[in-house]
Amino acid sequence: MATFADIATSALINLLSSFLFLLAFSVLRLQPQNARVFYPKWYIKGVRKPSRQTGGHKRLSLSHYVNLDYKAYLRLLSWMWDAILMPEEELIEHAGLDSAVFLRIFLLGLKIFSPMAGLGFLILLPINATDNNLQFKMAKNPNNPSFSDVDKLSISNVQDKSPRLWAHLLMTYIFTIWTCKMLYMEYKAVANMRLHFLATKKRSPDQFTILVRQVPPDPKRSVFTTVEDFFKSNTPDYLLAQIACIQIVYDANRLGKTLDKISRMENWLNYYQNKFDRHPLKRPIKKKGFLGLWGEEVDAINYYKTEIERMKIEAGKEQDEVMSDPKSIMPSAFVSFKSRWSAAVCAQTHQTRNPNKWITEWAPEVRDVYWPSLAIPYLSLTMRNVGMGVALFFLIFFFMIPVLAVQSLANLDGIVKKFTFIKPLVEMPAVKSFLQGFMAGLALRIFVALLPMILMFMSRFEGHLSRSALDRRAATKLYYFMVVNVFFGSVITGSLIEQLWAIINSPSIANILKNLGYLIPMKATFFITFIMVDGWAGVSMEIVRVYALVIYHLKNMFLVKTEKDRDEAMAPGNLLLNENIPRLELYFLLGIVYSVTTPIILPFIMVFFAFGYLAYRNQVINVYDPDYDSGAAFWPHVHGRIIVAMIIEQLTLIGLFTIKGPVGFAQTDVRNKSLSAATFMKEMLSSTPFLVALPIGTMIFHVYCKKRFRAAFQFYPMVEANEKDRQEEKDTPDLDLQKYLDKSYLHPVLKEEQE
Amino acid sequence: MATFADIATSALINLLSSFLFLLAFSVLRLQPQNARVFYPKWYIKGVRKPSRQTGGHKRLSLSHYVNLDYKAYLRLLSWMWDAILMPEEELIEHAGLDSAVFLRIFLLGLKIFSPMAGLGFLILLPINATDNNLQFKMAKNPNNPSFSDVDKLSISNVQDKSPRLWAHLLMTYIFTIWTCKMLYMEYKAVANMRLHFLATKKRSPDQFTILVRQVPPDPKRSVFTTVEDFFKSNTPDYLLAQIACIQIVYDANRLGKTLDKISRMENWLNYYQNKFDRHPLKRPIKKKGFLGLWGEEVDAINYYKTEIERMKIEAGKEQDEVMSDPKSIMPSAFVSFKSRWSAAVCAQTHQTRNPNKWITEWAPEVRDVYWPSLAIPYLSLTMRNVGMGVALFFLIFFFMIPVLAVQSLANLDGIVKKFTFIKPLVEMPAVKSFLQGFMAGLALRIFVALLPMILMFMSRFEGHLSRSALDRRAATKLYYFMVVNVFFGSVITGSLIEQLWAIINSPSIANILKNLGYLIPMKATFFITFIMVDGWAGVSMEIVRVYALVIYHLKNMFLVKTEKDRDEAMAPGNLLLNENIPRLELYFLLGIVYSVTTPIILPFIMVFFAFGYLAYRNQVINVYDPDYDSGAAFWPHVHGRIIVAMIIEQLTLIGLFTIKGPVGFAQTDVRNKSLSAATFMKEMLSSTPFLVALPIGTMIFHVYCKKRFRAAFQFYPMVEANEKDRQEEKDTPDLDLQKYLDKSYLHPVLKEEQE
Repeated sequence: MATFADIATSALINLLSSFLFLLAFSVLRLQPQNARVFYPKWYIKGVRKPSRQTGGHKRLSLSHYVNLDYKAYLRLLSWMWDAILMPEEELIEHAGLDSAVFLRIFLLGLKIFSPMAGLGFLILLPINATDNNLQFKMAKNPNNPSFSDVDKLSISNVQDKSPRLWAHLLMTYIFTIWTCKMLYMEYKAVANMRLHFLATKKRSPDQFTILVRQVPPDPKRSVFTTVEDFFKSNTPDYLLAQIACIQIVYDANRLGKTLDKISRMENWLNYYQNKFDRHPLKRPIKKKGFLGLWGEEVDAINYYKTEIERMKIEAGKEQDEVMSDPKSIMPSAFVSFKSRWSAAVCAQTHQTRNPNKWITEWAPEVRDVYWPSLAIPYLSLTMRNVGMGVALFFLIFFFMIPVLAVQSLANLDGIVKKFTFIKPLVEMPAVKSFLQGFMAGLALRIFVALLPMILMFMSRFEGHLSRSALDRRAATKLYYFMVVNVFFGSVITGSLIEQLWAIINSPSIANILKNLGYLIPMKATFFITFIMVDGWAGVSMEIVRVYALVIYHLKNMFLVKTEKDRDEAMAPGNLLLNENIPRLELYFLLGIVYSVTTPIILPFIMVFFAFGYLAYRNQVINVYDPDYDSGAAFWPHVHGRIIVAMIIEQLTLIGLFTIKGPVGFAQTDVRNKSLSAATFMKEMLSSTPFLVALPIGTMIFHVYCKKRFRAAFQFYPMVEANEKDRQEEKDTPDLDLQKYLDKSYLHPVLKEEQE
Repeated sequence: MATFADIATSALINLLSSFLFLLAFSVLRLQPQNARVFYPKWYIKGVRKPSRQTGGHKRLSLSHYVNLDYKAYLRLLSWMWDAILMPEEELIEHAGLDSAVFLRIFLLGLKIFSPMAGLGFLILLPINATDNNLQFKMAKNPNNPSFSDVDKLSISNVQDKSPRLWAHLLMTYIFTIWTCKMLYMEYKAVANMRLHFLATKKRSPDQFTILVRQVPPDPKRSVFTTVEDFFKSNTPDYLLAQIACIQIVYDANRLGKTLDKISRMENWLNYYQNKFDRHPLKRPIKKKGFLGLWGEEVDAINYYKTEIERMKIEAGKEQDEVMSDPKSIMPSAFVSFKSRWSAAVCAQTHQTRNPNKWITEWAPEVRDVYWPSLAIPYLSLTMRNVGMGVALFFLIFFFMIPVLAVQSLANLDGIVKKFTFIKPLVEMPAVKSFLQGFMAGLALRIFVALLPMILMFMSRFEGHLSRSALDRRAATKLYYFMVVNVFFGSVITGSLIEQLWAIINSPSIANILKNLGYLIPMKATFFITFIMVDGWAGVSMEIVRVYALVIYHLKNMFLVKTEKDRDEAMAPGNLLLNENIPRLELYFLLGIVYSVTTPIILPFIMVFFAFGYLAYRNQVINVYDPDYDSGAAFWPHVHGRIIVAMIIEQLTLIGLFTIKGPVGFAQTDVRNKSLSAATFMKEMLSSTPFLVALPIGTMIFHVYCKKRFRAAFQFYPMVEANEKDRQEEKDTPDLDLQKYLDKSYLHPVLKEEQE
C-alpha cells in the first residue's frame, strides 16, 4: 500500500529522470554528428543540407564532433518553443494530416481531463477525505488489508449508502456529458479537417485510380484485355472515354525479396570495403556458413562481389519471368480515369451481380499500397480473417498462461522438488538469483516487446491492401489486448489473484460488475505508478531516440561511404501509429475509469498528455517521415475506443453503486450467493433508473456521431470530386493526365528495375 | 401431461375441422355471389368479367345465388390442383416476386424438416424410447411431476451422461449442416430470382428515379430551383444532360384525410339512397351528433348531399393551398434521369460533405411509396427510431405484466377480499362465470389481435418511406415479440412460473442455459397443441376468408349500386407479410429447437407447412392483389431470423448437454449455486469443444451468406443498369422518356384531383 510519501518520492524520481533525459536530448541534439538523428525530416525536405566535410574517416577538427558554439547552449530548451509554436496548418503541410490529428489526441486528453481534475479536486476529494469508511472498517475487522493515504481520497473512504454518494452520481453524469461534448467537437473538427485536406490535396494518382479485384479468369484473354473488354461492353460511352489507363498487378514478391538480399549484401560489401580501406594490409575474411560462424573461409570482398553479381543476374531473370509469366499476373488491375468524378463513380458503386467478382474500390495512395497483400487470393480472405480472429482471441485470453508459467519460475522451490536433477545447478547462488530476478521478468518483457510485431504480422496475414489499414487493424488488436491484459489483468490478478476465482465462481453479470466496482478503485495507486513508469519514462525515451542514435552511429562508422548512404542510415522512421494510438487510448481508459472514484490519478495522466504532446510534436516536426498519409482515417477508431472506455467506466460504476449507492440500495455482501430473488430484483431496480441511462445514452451518442460524421471517412463526396475536376481544368487546361497516370501503380520493385 | 391418446384425439379433431373448413370453402367458392370474394385477383386482371345481371335489387333466379351445375360439385377439390400446378414463373408473372418467394418459405420448411424428421424417427426416437430415465427418476422421487408418453420419446428419457447422447450430439451437427445447406441454396436461388426479376422487369418510373432528401432550405429560392441549381453546378455536363425531370414532394396528408372523409360520406349517402329506393315512402333520417346517436334529427340524404358539397369545396381550397403554400412543399424531390445507369450513379453515391444534406437514394416503386412518411422531418428520424426502440423493448418485456394482471382477474376471491363492496355483484353466478371464463381470455386476445396494428403504427412512426419497408420493420418487431412472449413466455411461465424466479435468482449465463436446456424439452406437448390450434386452424380460417366474406356481402347489400362499387367492395387485400412472415419464422424456431430433443414435433410442423403452402398458393393465385412488389427484399430478414432460431437451439443444447452430456460432464444440480470454481471450469471446458463450435460456425456461415448474397438486395449493379438501358434503346429507339416520367411521382391525392 503506497502512501503519499511513496508516490511523491516516485513522482519526484520519475520527473527528475525525465528532466535528465530532456537535458540529454537538449545537449545531444546540438552536436553536429547527431543532426541526422534528431532532424532527419529537415534533411528529407532539403532544408538542412549536408555539410561538405563528408566521406571516409579523415581526421576532422573537434568542431566536427562537438558543438563549440556556447550561444547554442544558452538556448538549450528553445526546441520546446519551436515544437509548440508551429501552427497547425503549417504542421499539416509539413508532416501530413495523420501526424496532426495524432497530436490532437494528446490535446483532447488535456481538454477532457483538465475540467474533470478541477471538479474532482474541488468537490470529490474533500467529500471522500472527510469521511471515515476505511477507519471504520479497519476498526471493525483488523484483518482487512491496511489502507493508504491515497485510498482515503478515493470513493472507498465514503461509507456505504452515505448521501455523500449523490455527489459522485451527479459527477458521473457531468463527466460523461463533458466527455461526449469534447468527443463530438473533436469528431466534427477532424472530419472537417479531413474533408478540407482531401479538397486541397495536390493532384495525386490515387485520386483518379480505382482498384479492380477479382477479375474472372479467362484462359483465352489476358487480364488486361479482360478488364478492357469489361469496361468496353459494360459502361456508357461517356465513362469509357474517361478511362486513362489500365495497369495490371504483378506478383513481384519473390523479386522483391531477391532485391532485398542484394541490398543487404551490398551493405556487407561496404562494411568489408571500409574495413579494408582502414587496414589496407589485412584483407577481410569471412566464413561462408551459417551467420558467418562456420564453414570455409573466403576473401570477404571478392565473395560479396561475385555473389552480388550472381544475384543481380538472377534478379534480372526473375524480372523477365514476372513480366512474362501469366501466373505472376494477379487477377486485379488499377484503372485510372481522366476525372476524379468518374473514378468516384466506379469506386463507390457495385458493378456486377456477383459481389465476389469485379470488385471496385479506391486505390490507396501509391506509397500506401502494401504490395504483398495484392498477391493474396481474394477468396481466402474470409478464412484468413476468421482464423486471425480466433488466434487473437486465444492470444488475448491465454496470454496470461505463459506469463503465469514464467512467473512461476520465480518460485523455484516447487520446480526443484519435481526435477530433483537440476537441484545442484539451481542451488548455485548466482544461477538462482539470475533465474529468480532476471529471467522471469525478461521473458515477459521480450514477449511484450514482440507483441506489436506479432499483431502486425497477424494483420498482414488478413490481407489488407494499404499500410494505413494494416496499422489501424494492428492498433485495434493491441488496444483490446491491453484492455484485457494490462487493465483487467492488473485489476484482477495483480495483488488479488484469488478474486479471479471469485469472479469465475459467481459468473452472473451483476456479480462481475460488483466485483469490478469493488476492485478497480483499490488499484489506483498501482496505475499511478504505471503512468509514471510507462508513460512519463516512455515519452522521455522517445524523445532521446536511444535506439536510432546507436544504430545511426554504428552504420555511420561501418557502412557509410557516400552522402546517399548517410541519407539511408538516418532512418527517420514514422509515428508507429499501430503502437502509439492504443497506448494513448489506454491512458484515456485509465483516466475515464478513475475520474469519479479516484480523481487523484488525473493530474498524473494530464502530465503524461502534456509532456507527450510536447515530445511528439517535436518528433513530428523534426524526425518522423510518414510512410503514408491516410487523412486521419484512424480517427473513428480512436473515437470508438474512447466510447468503449466510457462504457467500461459506467458498468463498473453500476457495479460499485449496486453495493454502496446512496439511494437505499440493499446492502449485500459481494460474495454472498444466496441472495433471494426478491432482494436481487430490488437491488437491480433501485440502481437501474439512476445509472443504466448512462451506457444507453453513450451508445446512442456513439451511433449519432457515426451517422453524422462517419461518411467523411468512408466516402468521397461526388460534389467534391466534381469541384476539384473543374478547378483543375481551369488551372491547368493542357495537363496530359494520361501521361501523368501512366505507370503510376507499377510495383515499386519493377519501377526501380526499369529506371 | 398429455398422453398419446390426448394428442391423437386433438390431432383428429383439428384435422376434421380443417377438412370441414376446406369443404365449406370448396362449396362456397362455387357460388356465383361469392366469386368476387374468392377470385378477386382474376376480376382485377380482367379475366373474370362481371355477369350482366347487375344493378339494384330485382328479383333474380335461384341460379344467381346458388350454383346449380352439379358438374361443378364433382370437381369440388379441383382448386387444389389449380393452386399447385401453376408453374413458378407464371406465378411470378401473375402475382409478383414477393408472393412467390413467400410461398417458397413454406417449401423451405418442408425441405429442411423432412429429412430431419426421417432421421429423428429412425434414429433418435428409438434411442430415446428404449431408455428409462423418466421411470428411474419417478422411482427415485415420486414427487416429481408425472411424465407422459410423449416425454418418453424425448431426450428427457435418456439417462444423464449416457453414451446414447453421442447420437444426439452427432445429429445436432448433421441437422445444423443440413439447415445451413438448405439456407444457402435458398438464399442463392432467391438472390438469382431477384436479379432476374429486376433484369426482366418492365419499364417503370422507379428504375429512372432517385429521391433526394434534405434539400437545404433557401429563403430566396424554391425547392425546385434549389435542386435544379444543385445539379447544374455540381455534376459533370454528361450527367446534367441526363436529368429528365424534377418533381417536388407535397405534404398532402391533410388533403388526403379530407378526401377520405368525403368518400366515407359518399358511402353513407349511397346507403341511405338505397334504403330510400327500397322504401320510397319513408325518407331516411339521421341524428347529427356523435356516431348518429345524439342530436338534432335531419333528412339523411339531404344532409350528406350538402355536407359532401361543402367538403368538396373545402378540398378544392386545400388543394390550392398545397400547390401554392411553400410550407406544404417538403425539402425533398424525386429526380428522374433518362437512363437507369445515371440514376444508379446518383442513387448509390454520396453527394456532399455533410451526410445529413442532399441524401440520395433509389425512389421506391410509385405504388410502394408511403407518402405520409415523406412529410416527416429527416432530423427527427433518429430520435423517432430511438424512441420506438425503447418502446419496443418495454412492449416485449413488460407485455407479460398486463397479461398476468388480466389472468389474476380469474382469481376473483383475492380481489373480492380487497374490494368488499363488489362482493354482492361478483357472487351472482352469471357474472362470476363470465368474469372468470371470458373476460380474462378476451382482454388478452384483443390485445394480441391488435398487436400487428400497434407494431405497424410504431414502424410508421419511425418514418420509413415505402410500404414494403414498413412491412419488413413490423415483421421484425413481431418476430422478436413472439420469440420472447410466445416461445420463451410459454417455456418459462407456462406451467412453471417459479422457474422464472429461479432463473433471475441465478442469472449467470451458464445457469440460464442450463435452465432452458432443462425446461424446453418439457414443453414439447404444449407446442404440439399450439401448432395444431394456431397453425392448422389458422390456415383453414385463412382460406375461407370469413371476415372478407361477411364484409363483402354486407357492402353488397347496403352500398353497392354500380359495378365500380362492387369492384371496390371486393377488397382482395394482400399477403399481410408483416404478420405472416414472423408467424412462419416462429414455426421454423419451434422445428429447429425441438429437432434434436423431441423430433416427434416435426410431423406436425410439416403438416402446417404443406397445408399452408396449398392454402396460400390458392390465395396468392386467386385472391390477393399486392400493394407493391419489393422483389423479395424481405428475404435477408427471413434468413437472418432462421439463423437466430438456430443459435437459440444451439445455446439451449449447450445448456442441456452441460447437465447431461455424454462426455463425462460433471453432473450437477441446476439449482445448486455453491459450485466450486474448479467444478464450474471443468464443466465448461468439457462441454466446450463439442458444442461451442456450432454457434460460432453458424455465425460464420451467416456472415459468409451476407457477404456472398446480400449485395443483390442492397445495390443495383451498374452493369445490369447499363445493359437494360442499351436493350431499351435498341427495342424502343423513339421512346419519349421525358413524357413517360413526367408527373409519375405526384402525390396520388393530387393526381386524383387533377384527373
